[in-house]
Amino acid sequence: MDRNENEIDYVVKQAEAGFQFLQKTDVIERAELMYAIAAEIEALGDILIETAHLETALPLGRLQGEKARTVNQWRRYADAVRTGLYSEARIDRDPNGQFDLRKYNKGLGPVVVFGASNFPFAFSTAGGDTASAIGAGCSVIVKAHPAHLKTSQLMADAIDRAISKQGAPSGVFNHVLSDSFAAGQELVRHRFVKAVAFTGSFRGGKALFDLGQSRPDPIPVFAEMGSVNPVFLLPDYLGNNLEPFAKQYIASLLLGVGQFCTNPGVLVSVGGEQLDRFKAELKKELQAAATGKMLHAGILDSYNRLKGEMVQYDGVSILEEGQDNTAQDFAQALLAEAEASQVLANPKLLEEVFGPFGLIISCADLNEMKNVMEQLEGQITITFAASAQDIHECQALFSIAQDKCGRLLFQGMPTGVEVQYAMHHGGPYPATTDARFTSVGPDAVKRFLRPISFQNWPNEFLPKELQDGNPLQIDRLVNQQWTKA
Amino acid sequence: MDRNENEIDYVVKQAEAGFQFLQKTDVIERAELMYAIAAEIEALGDILIETAHLETALPLGRLQGEKARTVNQWRRYADAVRTGLYSEARIDRDPNGQFDLRKYNKGLGPVVVFGASNFPFAFSTAGGDTASAIGAGCSVIVKAHPAHLKTSQLMADAIDRAISKQGAPSGVFNHVLSDSFAAGQELVRHRFVKAVAFTGSFRGGKALFDLGQSRPDPIPVFAEMGSVNPVFLLPDYLGNNLEPFAKQYIASLLLGVGQFCTNPGVLVSVGGEQLDRFKAELKKELQAAATGKMLHAGILDSYNRLKGEMVQYDGVSILEEGQDNTAQDFAQALLAEAEASQVLANPKLLEEVFGPFGLIISCADLNEMKNVMEQLEGQITITFAASAQDIHECQALFSIAQDKCGRLLFQGMPTGVEVQYAMHHGGPYPATTDARFTSVGPDAVKRFLRPISFQNWPNEFLPKELQDGNPLQIDRLVNQQWTKA
Repeated sequence: MDRNENEIDYVVKQAEAGFQFLQKTDVIERAELMYAIAAEIEALGDILIETAHLETALPLGRLQGEKARTVNQWRRYADAVRTGLYSEARIDRDPNGQFDLRKYNKGLGPVVVFGASNFPFAFSTAGGDTASAIGAGCSVIVKAHPAHLKTSQLMADAIDRAISKQGAPSGVFNHVLSDSFAAGQELVRHRFVKAVAFTGSFRGGKALFDLGQSRPDPIPVFAEMGSVNPVFLLPDYLGNNLEPFAKQYIASLLLGVGQFCTNPGVLVSVGGEQLDRFKAELKKELQAAATGKMLHAGILDSYNRLKGEMVQYDGVSILEEGQDNTAQDFAQALLAEAEASQVLANPKLLEEVFGPFGLIISCADLNEMKNVMEQLEGQITITFAASAQDIHECQALFSIAQDKCGRLLFQGMPTGVEVQYAMHHGGPYPATTDARFTSVGPDAVKRFLRPISFQNWPNEFLPKELQDGNPLQIDRLVNQQWTKA
Repeated sequence: MDRNENEIDYVVKQAEAGFQFLQKTDVIERAELMYAIAAEIEALGDILIETAHLETALPLGRLQGEKARTVNQWRRYADAVRTGLYSEARIDRDPNGQFDLRKYNKGLGPVVVFGASNFPFAFSTAGGDTASAIGAGCSVIVKAHPAHLKTSQLMADAIDRAISKQGAPSGVFNHVLSDSFAAGQELVRHRFVKAVAFTGSFRGGKALFDLGQSRPDPIPVFAEMGSVNPVFLLPDYLGNNLEPFAKQYIASLLLGVGQFCTNPGVLVSVGGEQLDRFKAELKKELQAAATGKMLHAGILDSYNRLKGEMVQYDGVSILEEGQDNTAQDFAQALLAEAEASQVLANPKLLEEVFGPFGLIISCADLNEMKNVMEQLEGQITITFAASAQDIHECQALFSIAQDKCGRLLFQGMPTGVEVQYAMHHGGPYPATTDARFTSVGPDAVKRFLRPISFQNWPNEFLPKELQDGNPLQIDRLVNQQWTKA
């Protein structure tokens, strides 16, 4: 225990030194570092894909795609940081010379990142949280995910190589390989740590959030904790898209063996003959579909336990089970069904079962559908499977849905998260611990920034973002006008 | 108790209805409402000033100025909201038609505001927190400050008149006159309340923060809790400005009877003959200066108790006391002094004494001054009284100071907070509960906003900020380019 604490203390002090280096860099220098990291990750050969495949059971093609996405994230976030968008440089000069006030955003300090097991590249060691923290000028301490330690080490080595080539100190990025829970707690509690980013389960995220808020000095803990991503399937749309929509829903539900935080785990519709036909279609699709291995035995255990609990609740019955398979860590998909009245009586039916599990909720009418919508806790996404004709009947639903989620979809499926400025991957609690921030897209950088004002400060000691003559040529709000001058 | 809970529940439900109205307004409509509120406050006649004068003992001239500042805040925040700056509209369209993704910032929901006693206009009922929440599209519930209930009611009536004239529902703004602490707690705990803003003491702010974080669904609680705003007085500057700087420091220390969260309660310098002469000058200035009445008996009691405790600590002695006066609620100023070694041994010496109290800390050398800087907790401001010659000797100090505060001043005094884009009024904990946000300047609006994305959403149901053709003509980031098109 003492040894562990000393090691953690050493790592965090390295990270503090890394932060002191980074906060003296300007946005262009940080973007260069990020491009260099992207290049090193890109250069990682088959060994990365093969290692990750062995550790996570994710298919090779998916891992190739995720690697490309990860490299792209570093480049896109760097592009955004470079423009000064997140610096938010503001200069106000009093015409009578009473004050010269300049403000920009700087990094909060060392950030601890807890990666996700379901995205070993894009949301783990070298993932979006690490890229956005470094973009903000914060050093990073990654607590490697115990389910893919070797993959994590390969990524950490790539980042280290880029840091070294750029002449930055090694404390800019720090990798903690310990699989002890206590080590994670020590990190979050350390006085030099100024923020935490987490992607994973509600239990894990909430525990870290509470730890961060109970410090002598509370710190921001951004935890993305998933949700059931309900799909509201409306009558006219269903009538005209019954078969293709059943295909689309099952494909999205089973994608990645259901291991996405945007997995559409709940489908809500109005009962009747049409929904019965749709359910028959879902059964057919599920029977025909193959699932696969889950990421690790722990996730499979949890999936089996939670889906088992779900079908024990009053009024929940099994609609159809997916193909079975004796292979190790193989997950059997499950579709369950329930009446909305049961769901309204038992909020547990709207809790997440991480994996290929879907609950089909049958409402008496659109009004009961509205009640189910009101029962929802915060969601990452809500999807409307609706036609132009349905729209005018569900405007009240649209309105409530806005208060319940981070992303609203019209048709389509919530899986597939575009890394774009306009992406919001977040949402009201318990989807995340702070609805004001996203963990996907360049705007994820904002989580780790804070403003500082300089009043009558000597020009030579100002950060370049605020100096006279705008040496970085970024957009600045000067006396209430945007300008590069 | 039951009656109280029912009343609180009723008010919050009104606020929820007000929020539902506001979140359907666009930024131009909200700006119009804010201009209307500004006009109603402006139209309040002598009755406002006289009532506030009787309730707070603040001088008439100061209150006239604060009223003008309050009106100006509403107009400046409205100007900013109107431009769409805080909407952060972002549109990404896939060239292959795979997705159309649009994001903007909407209000979090009803916001509870706890005003400050020291700014009965600018940081109370109709103050910056209320203006920024409404600017964000959030309804507001103000818990009136018990020290100026009549002033609060006049302001609430003015806001209500504007809301009524604009045809908005009364739930947009709600005024709770109860002086019970339990009522405040009920408000923060209510499930429809989505954020809290507070200006006041550390004890009050921390209690509300903890309450907000311990809810079943934690909510953002922004509390601005003051600080000691240390002034670092460097040798060369002192040598050349001894007399005027003593005048300036005493004037700032006594301004508003020391009742500002930017009051420079600590001054740090290097001991020796020069500092001795400066102290003699401070004594002379203090003897010549008049203070006045504090805001209310509670603040005076707290001031007397805390300054009494301060001079009991080891190594703290009285340098000089200000003029005494038998008038009710009159505060006697106090200058104390201590060696830096005592301060380094007892962190309590760096805690705030709200009122006209200053502690002069004498360091052995610049290195010890650096140690004092490192000992500091988060501050709203840090001021350097330094010359060009001093600068090159205190670069290490500058660097540490950046991690310790929200605003850095070169020369001048921290009192006097400009309402500007470039103003940051905040800072690391315990100055505030979230270093990422300001409570002064239009950027204060950001505290109450959260993003939402719309994917493939029908144009007619999009908020105007995101509709095709940009009907509000705001700046939008479309496919990575800023445009009004």
